[in-house]
Amino acid sequence: MGTKLNFDEFIDQYRDQINTFLETNLSKSGSDQGLVSAMAYSVNAGGKRLRPLLTLAVLQTFDVAVTPARLQAATALELLHTYSLIHDDLPAMDNDNLRRGKPTNHVKFGAGMATLAGDGLLTLAFEWIASAKLPVIQRMELIQGISHAAGPAGMVAGQAMDIQNTRHKLSYTALKQLHAGKTGALIQYAVTAGGILSGANAAEMAALAAYGAAYGLAFQIYDDLMDVIGDTQAMGKLVHKDAGEQKNTYPGLFGVAGTIEKLQATVVEAQEALKALDSNNRLDASLLVSFLEYFKIKE
Amino acid sequence: MGTKLNFDEFIDQYRDQINTFLETNLSKSGSDQGLVSAMAYSVNAGGKRLRPLLTLAVLQTFDVAVTPARLQAATALELLHTYSLIHDDLPAMDNDNLRRGKPTNHVKFGAGMATLAGDGLLTLAFEWIASAKLPVIQRMELIQGISHAAGPAGMVAGQAMDIQNTRHKLSYTALKQLHAGKTGALIQYAVTAGGILSGANAAEMAALAAYGAAYGLAFQIYDDLMDVIGDTQAMGKLVHKDAGEQKNTYPGLFGVAGTIEKLQATVVEAQEALKALDSNNRLDASLLVSFLEYFKIKE
Repeated sequence: MGTKLNFDEFIDQYRDQINTFLETNLSKSGSDQGLVSAMAYSVNAGGKRLRPLLTLAVLQTFDVAVTPARLQAATALELLHTYSLIHDDLPAMDNDNLRRGKPTNHVKFGAGMATLAGDGLLTLAFEWIASAKLPVIQRMELIQGISHAAGPAGMVAGQAMDIQNTRHKLSYTALKQLHAGKTGALIQYAVTAGGILSGANAAEMAALAAYGAAYGLAFQIYDDLMDVIGDTQAMGKLVHKDAGEQKNTYPGLFGVAGTIEKLQATVVEAQEALKALDSNNRLDASLLVSFLEYFKIKE
Repeated sequence: MGTKLNFDEFIDQYRDQINTFLETNLSKSGSDQGLVSAMAYSVNAGGKRLRPLLTLAVLQTFDVAVTPARLQAATALELLHTYSLIHDDLPAMDNDNLRRGKPTNHVKFGAGMATLAGDGLLTLAFEWIASAKLPVIQRMELIQGISHAAGPAGMVAGQAMDIQNTRHKLSYTALKQLHAGKTGALIQYAVTAGGILSGANAAEMAALAAYGAAYGLAFQIYDDLMDVIGDTQAMGKLVHKDAGEQKNTYPGLFGVAGTIEKLQATVVEAQEALKALDSNNRLDASLLVSFLEYFKIKE
């Protein structure tokens, strides 16, 4: 077994590697300077890099090295995530002016260029995975997974449900479906991508998928909750926005206390999935356990 | 050798197959009915299906059968092409209200849903290629090709050049670069995709790439020309629009007569490329020759 990093070491080391990879390679990926600037602006706006970090955390769990090719495939996910934020912020969608504490892409570059920057990042994500120096079967499984998770049966469907149902109160079942698409599908893919890159067996893939699904749901519940109990400075975006826009949220359905309960139950689900992953005692899933710390509510 | 269809038979038979494939499979490809309706509206708005037809014409040239899997991979290109039209028509881009004689996607569904319909179609194109029952190496070569052609070094770059340079007069060199991205890259991919699916050798791939590049350029020159000398009814969209918007066009640089000369020279380039393809007399490229009839100017 290689040396295992603890959670803080892991985040510090690999967030830097992801950021360096993005800064080095994004500027070479386009032929129009205006377009590349718009793409790079949002990618380099200081995201947490949660999704590629989840992929790499699975690699460490399986004791698989983070090679440049695996880093490339993992980091492609950040391109795709950034596209979804740029399009989501557009005037025709959520019309947000602030993201990660900075003006949103269309405020800076105009809605036309922001649309193209998103289109470019989405397409480039596929190019980065397809051109990574990995076994072709692994690349194909990644592309099958990400295209399904991000497409009209996944993320885009969640977004479409969202814009169609603002000002209509959704049932809990429908809200779960909305979130499973809008944020859940891509986070679940991030986790299972780590399994694909690690050569996980079918039982391990199922456990990773369960952990990823619970993680994605917890992420959305936490985000809804922070919109109510967080503050603008800490979040880097406007809070108390969902209620003003009559968005469908967990606190809207269950109140703050009920939402915290749901969050905690979902975290437990994720922990249980990790126990299944680790049932043969071959794997040390402590890093993936640590990723759930994010959802702790400060009293 | 199988039975070869002549041009009219080929177009009739395969346009029907492409349309049937789209109608049958698009509705199953998404989980939100509103989104699927918006996607299907533009896909089924009666396009010529030029790009998948070019792919299939290469198959016939190489005497390779159009199996369901190859049809799926070829038809994915129409999803991607339709996404580019939907986003291009958006208020923040060209702000077109009419396309193929019908209201554009955002006029019908709103700009938010139109943005998502485009995002969904782009992503679904990759899913269709990745899930086609073809050798994994072929699928990967198709994905590498289409992601590069459609991305920020190809089509999206051409679009970005276009929106940044309306009202700025471009040089001929810059205009060629704009068109090579905006329309050329995807048409060239359509032709080379046929080579990939036919197992073409390196010399054949080079000839197909040259034919595809010339075809794409001729297509754009012809489109510019028809905006000046065509009429709205025949084109299914508003003409004389480019000049009003101070778009960079061939007639703007060379006048009508000069543009017709450029078009004819480009068609000759495409014909020369086919001679190279057919240099060992193994292939009958007459169908690809017939595809150039499209660019004949009626006197």
